[in-house]
Amino acid sequence: MDISAVNALSYEDFVNIFGNVVEKCPLITAAVWTSRPFISLNALEATINEFIDALPESGKEGILRCHPDLAGRDLHSGTLTRESREEQARAGMDALSSVEASRVARLNEEYKRRFGFPFVICARTTDKTRILRELSERCQNARAAEMARGIEEVKKICRLRLQGLVLSDAPNKL
Amino acid sequence: MDISAVNALSYEDFVNIFGNVVEKCPLITAAVWTSRPFISLNALEATINEFIDALPESGKEGILRCHPDLAGRDLHSGTLTRESREEQARAGMDALSSVEASRVARLNEEYKRRFGFPFVICARTTDKTRILRELSERCQNARAAEMARGIEEVKKICRLRLQGLVLSDAPNKL
Repeated sequence: MDISAVNALSYEDFVNIFGNVVEKCPLITAAVWTSRPFISLNALEATINEFIDALPESGKEGILRCHPDLAGRDLHSGTLTRESREEQARAGMDALSSVEASRVARLNEEYKRRFGFPFVICARTTDKTRILRELSERCQNARAAEMARGIEEVKKICRLRLQGLVLSDAPNKL
Repeated sequence: MDISAVNALSYEDFVNIFGNVVEKCPLITAAVWTSRPFISLNALEATINEFIDALPESGKEGILRCHPDLAGRDLHSGTLTRESREEQARAGMDALSSVEASRVARLNEEYKRRFGFPFVICARTTDKTRILRELSERCQNARAAEMARGIEEVKKICRLRLQGLVLSDAPNKL
């Protein structure tokens, strides 16, 4: 699908296709449709990022809170979105040893208790070992830094999901 | 559930319970969790309304675009959210004559072509006859007026959904 095909979509088709580029936030996709036509995929991505940046702090926290825990309840109960399931599986989060799984569960809880939102990381650009290390390290950060970091990760995830939908032959590098 | 029970919820439980008080916009619910504790259900509702009001115009349009058509594709294919299905059924939108159904489909399309978002109405506080009349009349409005009106209806829907979740014996009057 090239950008002119994207620009020709009704808002309904646009939201059906791109509604989960920010996890469980079709509101954002539906909002940026207002800014069409986009001159490129990068322009669409930039419009999404600007919308996110313009939200109040509570709205950014809201975006993070719409994300599932890594290797958490939604993965085990099969209620992850398709995109999250694929991303977590690619990073090996669906195949943790019992020791790793216990450690992730404990650190996820510690992170959420400390910050009031979940640990968000772009799983597709990293791997299990680095995710476990980051989860442990990021629990020690200041709240404001961690919110900014979480939103950066949301934008990376969004970029890769957009590329996957628009450019089927796009490399998965950032 | 009283307000102290609401205030004691983790963000995950809060979003699970209240995530669809604004249709398909769990981002809003997840954002207002930041403002807890709420002194009353009205205070929770007011916080949601303030979040909506502070969004840019595109964000308000985004909220409207997350709503299904009345008696539209999602109703016929069984993909409405539970809340929308119950509200549309209560207003009789799932039992239109073929003449009524054709008229609603035509007016829905006209409305969306004109405004770039769907006709939104709080079905629980009206009935089929008035919905059909409003759909026809509101197609003639100016865009800005219609956006403001749509958001008012979103807030009415939200209020009734909140009351249904928190006060099981609440009357359905506004």
